[in-house]
Amino acid sequence: MQRNIRIILVETSHSGNIGSAARAMKTMGLNQLYLVSPKQPIDDQALALAAGADDVLKNATIVDHFEQAIADCELVIGTSARLRHLQNTLIDARKCGEKTIQFCQTGKVALVFGRERVGLTNKELLKCHYHLNIPTNPDYSSLNLAMAVQLVCYEIRMAWLADKKNYFNKENANLPLSSIENPYPKSLELEHFFNHTEHLYKQLGFIKNQGVIQKLRRLYQRAKIEKTELNILQGMLTAVEKQLATEQKQKIVK
Amino acid sequence: MQRNIRIILVETSHSGNIGSAARAMKTMGLNQLYLVSPKQPIDDQALALAAGADDVLKNATIVDHFEQAIADCELVIGTSARLRHLQNTLIDARKCGEKTIQFCQTGKVALVFGRERVGLTNKELLKCHYHLNIPTNPDYSSLNLAMAVQLVCYEIRMAWLADKKNYFNKENANLPLSSIENPYPKSLELEHFFNHTEHLYKQLGFIKNQGVIQKLRRLYQRAKIEKTELNILQGMLTAVEKQLATEQKQKIVK
Repeated sequence: MQRNIRIILVETSHSGNIGSAARAMKTMGLNQLYLVSPKQPIDDQALALAAGADDVLKNATIVDHFEQAIADCELVIGTSARLRHLQNTLIDARKCGEKTIQFCQTGKVALVFGRERVGLTNKELLKCHYHLNIPTNPDYSSLNLAMAVQLVCYEIRMAWLADKKNYFNKENANLPLSSIENPYPKSLELEHFFNHTEHLYKQLGFIKNQGVIQKLRRLYQRAKIEKTELNILQGMLTAVEKQLATEQKQKIVK
Repeated sequence: MQRNIRIILVETSHSGNIGSAARAMKTMGLNQLYLVSPKQPIDDQALALAAGADDVLKNATIVDHFEQAIADCELVIGTSARLRHLQNTLIDARKCGEKTIQFCQTGKVALVFGRERVGLTNKELLKCHYHLNIPTNPDYSSLNLAMAVQLVCYEIRMAWLADKKNYFNKENANLPLSSIENPYPKSLELEHFFNHTEHLYKQLGFIKNQGVIQKLRRLYQRAKIEKTELNILQGMLTAVEKQLATEQKQKIVK
C-alpha cells in the first residue's frame, strides 16, 4: 500500500516542516514524498527534524509544477481550510484515510498539502477530487503543516489497520464498487479532456470565461469519473468536431 | 468540556516541544496544560513554537511531582510504548478520545505524556487507569512528543464533535451537505437533458445504442448533479446545435 500513497507538499517555505513531515510520514508507515517547488532545499534543518526519517527525504521527488506531482494519480485529495465552493467534496481526515486505503489497492493516491500561510490555490483545489478539512478549533485553527501531515498519515494508518483486520466490515458494505471493475483515468487524461472541452466550446462561443470550466471540473471531480465514462465524453467532443469539420469542408467545396 | 481536560507533560527536555504541544492543544480547543518538573523553563523557544497559543503556555501550571498534577483527576490516561504488564488497560488514541469525552462531563481527566526518550516510569504508569498506545510503524515508532499530543487532542476533538452532533452517525456521514445553497434539478429536468443529449448525439452519429446514454445517466446520477451544472451542460448542447444550424443555413444560402 505504501507505494501507492503519496504525500505532496506544495511550495513549502520552511525546510524544517519538510523534515518534520517526513518523520510524521514514516512513523505511520508511509514513505513517498513529493515536493513541488519548495522555497528551501532539503537542508541540515530538514535532516535534523526528520530524525531517523532521512531516507524519506533523500528519496523525495522534487518537481516544478503541481500537475507533474499528480499526473499519474487516480485519486487526489487536497487539504483546504476554505469551505466555500467545496461543500460537496469536503471530507474529514477520517474519511480521507478510508478513501485512501480503498483506492490505493489499485491506483495511486495523492494527499496534497499547500503553502504554510495560504494553502492551495483555487486552481490547485479544482484539480482535487476531494477536499480535506481537519475540524480545528474555529477560534484558533493554526495547525502546523507537519502536524496536519501527521494527522492525515495517522488516519491512513488507522484505516489500513482497520481494513487489515476487517474492523469496519459493516461500513465497507456501502462503499462504491471495486475500482478494478471500473478503472479511473489518470489526472493527465482528465486534464486533456478539460482542455479539449474548453477549446471546442470557446470556438462555439459558449465558454467565455473561467467560470464554466471550473464548474465542469468540480462536477467531474466530484463524480470521480471512470475511464469508460471519460471515453464517452471525449467521443462526444470528437463527434461534434467531426461534424463541424464536415460542414466546413462542404462549404469550401461549394 | 475544556476545563475538565488536562494535558500533562512530565519532565520534558526540550522547551520547543512544550511550545508545540501548547499549539497542538489549542488547535483542538484544549487549554489546560500541566508541566511536571520541566527540564527547561517556558523560554523564547517555547513561545516561538507556540505561535498564537502563548496564552496556553502562560496559564500552564508547573508542579514538582506527577502526583500533584493528577491529584484532582478522576480519570488518568498515560501514554506508553511499552506493552508488557499493561495489556488489559491498553487503549488506542480513538478510544482515549471517547473515554475522555465520556468522563469529562462529570470529572477531571488527565492525559499524561512522558519524557522524550524514556516515557513514563513504571511507577507513573501504575497510577494511570488506562494506557494509551498510538499504533505507529513498528519499524520506526519515533513519534515526536508534540505530534503525540496533537494526535490525542485531535481524537478528543473528534469524539467531542461526534458526541455533540452525532457526527459519525453513519447515515449523516455519507449525505451531501445542505442542498439549499446548491439546489438540485427535478427528475423531469434531468430527463429532458438526457433526451436532448440522446437526440443530438444520435444525429451526430455518436450514439448508436442505449449503452452510452445509460452510462451517462449513471455518471450524472452518481455525481448528484446540481441545477447550475445542468444548466451548463444544457447550454453546451444548445451551443452545438446553434453552430450546426448556422452551418446548415450557410450551405442553403450558398
